[in-house]
Amino acid sequence: MPLELVLRALHDPAADRQREPRQARLCRLLKEAILSGRLAPGTRLPGSRRLAEDYAMARNGVLFAYQQLLAEGFLEADRGGTRVGRLPFRRAAAEPSAPPPVSFLAQRARRLPAAARDESFLPFAPGVPDLNAFPWRAWAKVLQRAWSEVSARQVAYAEPGGEPELRRAVAAFLAARRGVACTPEQVFVVPGGQTALDACARLLADAGDTVWLEEPGYAPARNVMLAAGLRTVHVPVDEDGMAPGAALWRASPPRLVYVTPSHQYPLGSVLSLERRLDLLNRIGGGWLIEDDYDSDFNHARPGAPLPAIQGLRPDAPVIYVGTFSKLLYPGLRIAYLVVPRWAVREIGEALRALHRGGQAMEQRALARFIDGGQLTRHVRRMAPIYRERQAVLRTELRARFGGCEILGGQAGLHLVLRLPASLPDTALVEAALRRGVVARALSTYYAGPDGGNGLLLGYGMAAAERIPELVGRLAP
Amino acid sequence: MPLELVLRALHDPAADRQREPRQARLCRLLKEAILSGRLAPGTRLPGSRRLAEDYAMARNGVLFAYQQLLAEGFLEADRGGTRVGRLPFRRAAAEPSAPPPVSFLAQRARRLPAAARDESFLPFAPGVPDLNAFPWRAWAKVLQRAWSEVSARQVAYAEPGGEPELRRAVAAFLAARRGVACTPEQVFVVPGGQTALDACARLLADAGDTVWLEEPGYAPARNVMLAAGLRTVHVPVDEDGMAPGAALWRASPPRLVYVTPSHQYPLGSVLSLERRLDLLNRIGGGWLIEDDYDSDFNHARPGAPLPAIQGLRPDAPVIYVGTFSKLLYPGLRIAYLVVPRWAVREIGEALRALHRGGQAMEQRALARFIDGGQLTRHVRRMAPIYRERQAVLRTELRARFGGCEILGGQAGLHLVLRLPASLPDTALVEAALRRGVVARALSTYYAGPDGGNGLLLGYGMAAAERIPELVGRLAP
Repeated sequence: MPLELVLRALHDPAADRQREPRQARLCRLLKEAILSGRLAPGTRLPGSRRLAEDYAMARNGVLFAYQQLLAEGFLEADRGGTRVGRLPFRRAAAEPSAPPPVSFLAQRARRLPAAARDESFLPFAPGVPDLNAFPWRAWAKVLQRAWSEVSARQVAYAEPGGEPELRRAVAAFLAARRGVACTPEQVFVVPGGQTALDACARLLADAGDTVWLEEPGYAPARNVMLAAGLRTVHVPVDEDGMAPGAALWRASPPRLVYVTPSHQYPLGSVLSLERRLDLLNRIGGGWLIEDDYDSDFNHARPGAPLPAIQGLRPDAPVIYVGTFSKLLYPGLRIAYLVVPRWAVREIGEALRALHRGGQAMEQRALARFIDGGQLTRHVRRMAPIYRERQAVLRTELRARFGGCEILGGQAGLHLVLRLPASLPDTALVEAALRRGVVARALSTYYAGPDGGNGLLLGYGMAAAERIPELVGRLAP
Repeated sequence: MPLELVLRALHDPAADRQREPRQARLCRLLKEAILSGRLAPGTRLPGSRRLAEDYAMARNGVLFAYQQLLAEGFLEADRGGTRVGRLPFRRAAAEPSAPPPVSFLAQRARRLPAAARDESFLPFAPGVPDLNAFPWRAWAKVLQRAWSEVSARQVAYAEPGGEPELRRAVAAFLAARRGVACTPEQVFVVPGGQTALDACARLLADAGDTVWLEEPGYAPARNVMLAAGLRTVHVPVDEDGMAPGAALWRASPPRLVYVTPSHQYPLGSVLSLERRLDLLNRIGGGWLIEDDYDSDFNHARPGAPLPAIQGLRPDAPVIYVGTFSKLLYPGLRIAYLVVPRWAVREIGEALRALHRGGQAMEQRALARFIDGGQLTRHVRRMAPIYRERQAVLRTELRARFGGCEILGGQAGLHLVLRLPASLPDTALVEAALRRGVVARALSTYYAGPDGGNGLLLGYGMAAAERIPELVGRLAP
């Protein structure tokens, strides 16, 4: 009799060792047996008194277990006592009501390219600042201060646009550093740069709309566009940045144009003023997404970096996107969008429908960190350090890979080393990873087949004195 | 001569008061004039010596300003000196290259309903726990401890699935409390419940696919489905939860079914075991999204709440979604998905392409908070407090709104009061807000026109002794 077999497990010494109470054990065993079909619907259970006697349980324990399973619907009671319910506990194998799960991911999910693994704390991983040089103690202190003043308002859902003091601080910071012309109301704080791009993809374009991306370009941007169902057009990049011809404007007019003008990702070219104005003049009913991703540390001398496109014509359909990942640390997940004044209300409402705000304590701490000048001091302290690292990296690459072209370096925290076809980048990357160094293969940044061959090398986490040895580990 | 008018502003007393340096001011004035078209392309600028003399500047200042504008492309140099560049600084008014911006939001964004404003810290706002009763000091301490042990690995981009210790803690917590059967690898931590739902919408369904939602239902879930371009079908809810007929399964077979089985949002019914099994038996090639949104505090006695659907058949195509918003606080933004074992690799890779992980310090703190038993103690302490509040609220509602039906209350932190047609819910909600009390209108939870009329009243933030007075403010 199967019921007896099921109940015999009440004496299971393993369950005894784990101190699972008899009552819970009885519930679990019956439920498992019912769900697996070992106890058929309608099977009668022994009376509580008998079961308690047979298995050395308290009768109340049995009663409570039965009551629980009755409440959950696994058992049913009638005059004759208690029996297994008559629900379809097991899948009826013969009648599938829907097609079999051939593909359990959506098509758009299957189009997403595999993302690089995140050993982002290892040397030469691009996109990561020096996390050892950040003033952690000072940061922990402003965080602690925010927590010491915690109120219910701050830990409930926050305003979706972000804490007002952070929006003010960001507007002032961007005006001073990047020539962005905006009021605090135009700033919307979001949890991470990718969330910012994703909001653009879903709120400003419909499935099937065309988005222009840079080729080569930033894979996470491409991913959110694909996940939003957009049609991606990959526009080649030259030494002046994204270079769409007049024919492309006619053949594939874009709803969205995604650009990284300060320091094209990954090649490092700066979008020329002429091209910036051209984009503004032609964008018409579409949107320009200006990802100022890599503008934080500028090494070109003399002359400051080109200010943001947004500031050239503040009423143009431009969304300016920035993040604190490199000024502070990637794990912070605080980024922002700056939207035109005329779009504040509608984009604000749409964002509110998509995201619930939070992280107010971190936002308040960050606002203080900016307002108190601590962030600017940190950036000022790091700028010459990164410049030196870049110079040493350049020298070492020239020494070890003589004749190979080196791209980028006007801003940002990485260089690109072009490689001859005899040294395939993916093979070098694999070999380097085995030696504890992360490089990225330039070829993987291309959507099309005619990719470049080279290495992306971030120097954010590479101390200058270690660079010669680290570059040695890259050599084939 | 317009150039002189532009340069005269170098003497602007307001700029003097703000201590804007002359060099920066010269840059700014020239750039503004060029961008606005007040200085025409080709306009010659005076020599640096003359300008310095005329406007009492250091000659070096003028030279640096010119150099900066040359570098940025606003000026160009020739043998004759310096002149305004010949780029198309102003939009050519006569030739718009794209259609005018009739609609600057995407169609899918315009379909998003306006979200309720977030006065979520006021009494009767639903979905918010008692933020004054949370052990803030203990929480700040675990956070501080995490920060005191900070390492580069933890502040770089984190593993997209979440910190391993949190994934382990969540798996154990869910097994014990909700009968969820999973390994830590099946748990993916994401920043907020809405991000979890959004990931389901974009990764498991394509634009145009059908999603079933509960009617009435949870608006943020509907919003992410609309933003993902899905076709929404609203399935009526009765006292046993979502009630799709056999005809609906045939007419509109779903790719996704979104359910809140523990405590239907907003009506509070519990999805019966029979319906749960029916969903599992019929879902076939689609996906069930089980949002266990409101299961945290269970008030029904005797008998624990129904365990999760996920645990009934752990290999079924079920995504279990949960959040720590109510166990801890909404601003934390830590939620999770539990995916079937056979989907871990593919969903994990797709999530990695969409999201970059972060907030490792909060995740590590939370793991400790769970492992150390502090979370369970907090929940245990709060359960009778919430039960009392619900009882008092029920009594007061009966006294003030005699004869009106009260729904829900088996779990969660809110009740629903049905109102007669003579008392339209939106009018009551507006009046209550003016008196500092937040109620939500039941009618706004319906997507279709035949909505119910009533009030959603959260008691998470309402101390029992204040409830009689607060209910008084609701009365018409």
